[in-house]
Amino acid sequence: MITVNARATTGPSEPFRAVQIERREPGPSDVLIDIAYAGICHTDVSRARGEFGTTTYPIVPGHEIAGTVAAVGPGVTRFTVGDRVGVGCLVDSCRRCEFCRAGLEPYCNRGHVRTYNSTGHDGRNTLGGYSEKIVVDEAYVVAIPDTIPLPNAAPLLCAGITLYSPLRHWNAGPGTRLAILGFGGLGHVGVAIAAALGAHTTVFELTMDKQADALKRGAEAYRLSTDPAIFTDFAGAFDLILSTVPAALDYDAVLGMLNLNGTLVMLGVPKQPITVDVFSLLHNRRSLAGTLVGGIAETQQMLEFCADHGIVADVEIIGADEIDQAYDRVDRGDVRYRFVIDVQTMADGHPQEG
Amino acid sequence: MITVNARATTGPSEPFRAVQIERREPGPSDVLIDIAYAGICHTDVSRARGEFGTTTYPIVPGHEIAGTVAAVGPGVTRFTVGDRVGVGCLVDSCRRCEFCRAGLEPYCNRGHVRTYNSTGHDGRNTLGGYSEKIVVDEAYVVAIPDTIPLPNAAPLLCAGITLYSPLRHWNAGPGTRLAILGFGGLGHVGVAIAAALGAHTTVFELTMDKQADALKRGAEAYRLSTDPAIFTDFAGAFDLILSTVPAALDYDAVLGMLNLNGTLVMLGVPKQPITVDVFSLLHNRRSLAGTLVGGIAETQQMLEFCADHGIVADVEIIGADEIDQAYDRVDRGDVRYRFVIDVQTMADGHPQEG
Repeated sequence: MITVNARATTGPSEPFRAVQIERREPGPSDVLIDIAYAGICHTDVSRARGEFGTTTYPIVPGHEIAGTVAAVGPGVTRFTVGDRVGVGCLVDSCRRCEFCRAGLEPYCNRGHVRTYNSTGHDGRNTLGGYSEKIVVDEAYVVAIPDTIPLPNAAPLLCAGITLYSPLRHWNAGPGTRLAILGFGGLGHVGVAIAAALGAHTTVFELTMDKQADALKRGAEAYRLSTDPAIFTDFAGAFDLILSTVPAALDYDAVLGMLNLNGTLVMLGVPKQPITVDVFSLLHNRRSLAGTLVGGIAETQQMLEFCADHGIVADVEIIGADEIDQAYDRVDRGDVRYRFVIDVQTMADGHPQEG
Repeated sequence: MITVNARATTGPSEPFRAVQIERREPGPSDVLIDIAYAGICHTDVSRARGEFGTTTYPIVPGHEIAGTVAAVGPGVTRFTVGDRVGVGCLVDSCRRCEFCRAGLEPYCNRGHVRTYNSTGHDGRNTLGGYSEKIVVDEAYVVAIPDTIPLPNAAPLLCAGITLYSPLRHWNAGPGTRLAILGFGGLGHVGVAIAAALGAHTTVFELTMDKQADALKRGAEAYRLSTDPAIFTDFAGAFDLILSTVPAALDYDAVLGMLNLNGTLVMLGVPKQPITVDVFSLLHNRRSLAGTLVGGIAETQQMLEFCADHGIVADVEIIGADEIDQAYDRVDRGDVRYRFVIDVQTMADGHPQEG
């Protein structure tokens, strides 16, 4: 076993504390990664605070992991020591089902192992990226292109692929009238990817003070989501709406902005079930859909797409002792646009005692 | 004006009564139709009883109309006196928008005129098929193939096209694992169309006593919708689920029966908004969709498809004085499988006085 420093919380209202956790010795196909940066996803906050009701404590969150390869097992073929690599939301799956074989590992429902707060094939609760090292089978590791700095790459491993996958699946491209609800960690990457794909993108946000950033990243229009006029100004206007908003919305009003055969894709997950009037779906033959992140191959493709188009996440780098404050700010939407933890600040000599 | 006998109700709890209504003299492109049979759709019951909150009284329902051409305007090119014809849910639309030009008249949102309880282009409330005659522009009239008896054709004008259109839109065919929820007026036609398209169809119903009919019409499996085991037996089993059920369901459980990229299409409209856990959509990248009936050209195509495959609606023919009792039976699902009113029973000498 390899002992590493990490940050964990022991309950929904407990602060993060310095802990030491064990990583397995790399097996034949494993990669040992020195984590440099770990992004803070809104899901981390929800899981750490027990909002989905399925959290196993202590929890070490983190599924936006960027670092370098420190060691490889003898069977590893795709990576060597020193390579810049990333790990996203999954660290294992059954590898045999139709979904795994099709590169749709997040949809594996037989042996799907999330990067944290999930039961690994060894029966242990997985521990995520808020830690100095992680050991992952190379099949679930991606290469980070040289042109993307590691802190700016980390959020792409969840936020980036969460937007890239539905944009590709629902064929966003030239001629697509797209709306993105929320210009935060997900939205700011999504707008840039959508623009690079050629879609005509409108952003809806709670405040106007992100407008300049949204337009700079390729949005063609930007409107306040709280302005009731948007629902008439944009009635039937969009082919595709991606909602990155984890709060409850007036879904009937949002669906009303979809054109014929339009789809509202839920990426942000509200805490409560959502309510929809069926007539909102009948008119214009609309769909309300969900999606998980893309698979490993698509994640690699997304990183190369981002490198080719100069797309990175905008980040605020924080120390390991600032996670609690960062969570509060994530909950308020007060971040431009993703926190990443500088994992070097977890080194011995800086442990926080609870 | 042409005065004709009809049946109307004047309020949510009022019985149907004999009335006389006015039809316009046929204009240049109009067809005057002697109505032979009018189907009773569940929507008629909901609208007549004011359940959607948008009913204008008195209401003459009926949008499953089969009859013969009695007269044509001088500009009519597609029909002549004596032709067997049908009228479905629409009698007019704007004819200029992108949807109308694409043959998607039900999605026209500029001048969409439903067959009853809708404002016509003349500003008058439309009156439907529970009447002896109707005048409709030929662009909204379809030809009924000779091999389909008129009473059995009437329900195809709504129930038939309501199923045919989504089956085609969502590409039901060989290899499609399809479920149809409800084997009533819509479902019994849908099963036959789905079988003719080559889909593998499972029916879920509240009672087992329709099983023989469902299998005879082409279903491959039939299960009780009240059996909780269906949700595990059919977890992830379907590519497409069509819900013809106007009652509220456990939509999360139903969505759980969809495979990757599967779609649950709402055809029956519950009285209340529906509630869905977003996680039910995220898993397997599922969609919840709605659809209206198909356009006029697709309705014609559906009738020819039904004629080619020997598909008709199974009907119970009733007299015009039996509408109230029929409505109560529709509400209980007690009909095999569609009531059609024999409109000849409205003739003078048989008026009901309120």
